Amino acid sequence: MLAVTILGNNSAIPAFDRHPTAQVITLDDHLFLIDCGEGTQTQMNKYKIRRSRINHIFISHLHGDHYFGLIGLITSMGLLGRHQDLNLYGPALLKDIFDLQLRVADTQLPFNLIFHPLQEEGLLVKETRFQVDCFRVFHRIECWGFIFRQVRPPRRVNPEKARISGIPSSFFDRLKWGEDYETKEGTLIQNATVTDPAPLARSYAYSADTLFHLDIAVKVQGVNMLYHETTYLKDLEERARNRYHCTTIQAATIAKTAGVKQLLIGHFSSKYDKLDEFESEAREVFPNTYLALEGVSYIVP
Amino acid sequence: MLAVTILGNNSAIPAFDRHPTAQVITLDDHLFLIDCGEGTQTQMNKYKIRRSRINHIFISHLHGDHYFGLIGLITSMGLLGRHQDLNLYGPALLKDIFDLQLRVADTQLPFNLIFHPLQEEGLLVKETRFQVDCFRVFHRIECWGFIFRQVRPPRRVNPEKARISGIPSSFFDRLKWGEDYETKEGTLIQNATVTDPAPLARSYAYSADTLFHLDIAVKVQGVNMLYHETTYLKDLEERARNRYHCTTIQAATIAKTAGVKQLLIGHFSSKYDKLDEFESEAREVFPNTYLALEGVSYIVP
Repeated sequence: MLAVTILGNNSAIPAFDRHPTAQVITLDDHLFLIDCGEGTQTQMNKYKIRRSRINHIFISHLHGDHYFGLIGLITSMGLLGRHQDLNLYGPALLKDIFDLQLRVADTQLPFNLIFHPLQEEGLLVKETRFQVDCFRVFHRIECWGFIFRQVRPPRRVNPEKARISGIPSSFFDRLKWGEDYETKEGTLIQNATVTDPAPLARSYAYSADTLFHLDIAVKVQGVNMLYHETTYLKDLEERARNRYHCTTIQAATIAKTAGVKQLLIGHFSSKYDKLDEFESEAREVFPNTYLALEGVSYIVP
Repeated sequence: MLAVTILGNNSAIPAFDRHPTAQVITLDDHLFLIDCGEGTQTQMNKYKIRRSRINHIFISHLHGDHYFGLIGLITSMGLLGRHQDLNLYGPALLKDIFDLQLRVADTQLPFNLIFHPLQEEGLLVKETRFQVDCFRVFHRIECWGFIFRQVRPPRRVNPEKARISGIPSSFFDRLKWGEDYETKEGTLIQNATVTDPAPLARSYAYSADTLFHLDIAVKVQGVNMLYHETTYLKDLEERARNRYHCTTIQAATIAKTAGVKQLLIGHFSSKYDKLDEFESEAREVFPNTYLALEGVSYIVP
């Protein structure tokens, strides 16, 4: 199970009851938070997302609509008595900001806040069931995208075939990772005879705020679902470029070029009340496009 | 006209759809903002308060539930093209925080943000129609209260009497300030014969987060309306003391000792879902007490 729940889909200024950027990734038993605009903790209350289940937070860049809610979330976690570690990934200067804010408030967090400054593209965190990579995008200031991938054993055991071949269930986990089995009698049971290839692990890429740039299609090549910003409709391509943002057509072009299965679009400018045209314009280029709507969870196909 | 509109009445953690502290003062044609917890700009949208009309913001102290919404409000003002000066009053370190946050975002505000660090008790700002004083309260970190006062000419002109006495309307403004008028024939018209004493100017005191301390009653003596925190009900007096906060009975005791006309209570702990008991307990000591409810404007009597 890999899904994304949208907590905020608007660009800089909150408007039309839309909120600044925040998304929660559900990856099997794990929750991750990507970006944390002002009011994210209130949106979590509204959509019943438990702060205590989040152990990893990823901040794409230091424009306020992507992180002004972070310090409030972190201090609330402390006030609620959190003890487990919290991993925070973001541009290096983020640490200076929350260190200062905690210091002036004379606040000691009751948990370890482990900060990981973003420095190089590539693997950021890998655990048994998931891995997260980061990549640079093209914005006015340093800005990062993230790819979340399920990690799966390469093969699935066929328990009936394995049993008939005399393989004990204690060996099944090694079968999943491709090992052959040798019986007491010295017979080699080839792995492929008792296992099937695992279903493909799913992946979700969040491309943050960026100029239109085909390099992004290379960086997110083949992910199952791509979130790409569409701050403006297609008629404002020049404004989008001047402000280091994208239009519907540009986002859809990235999705098509990258060969993703599904495109989610958001970061809508506060100048737009209605969002329908974002969807219809993007679908001209990439039909499997959906609006990122607040409170909705999108399951990665 | 002097009134206060409550945008947030809760203490540290947002809960039960209550928000962290923020209040808007309407003083004749002026709007002032006191404290600015996370989500204040969204509350302003909800209650139709125009950001552009606010020229003075007062921050009591640097606990997050009183200022985490400030940087978002300020940057939104910039994005909306504000040009007029904005005056900000708060503890000195507040400047370090917003300077850092603007710097990392590479943001240049299109207006002057004039910061006034709080240093001494007494007069903070005085203009033709109002003045604001600040005073220290007793919290875990440096913390300030504020008193907003209308400034009125001492007298009101009776236009009919003045006309009969031959005083031109161009002289009326000087009559308001108590001058006598000498006619062309040399007759002295005594001011009191053509004017009446002005109604008393109104005042509102905001006492911020504080321990129970009778000095506060001295500092806010005689104001028309006092806002005083009541983080806890009366049975939690020890907890209130340990956390530098007050109970209902303590807030009401300050109001009674200070001889104010009306008491407004707020900063309710997130442990309380219902608020009725706050009102009933405070009224045991000071009957003219009201709960500070979000979205409600209280007119200073």
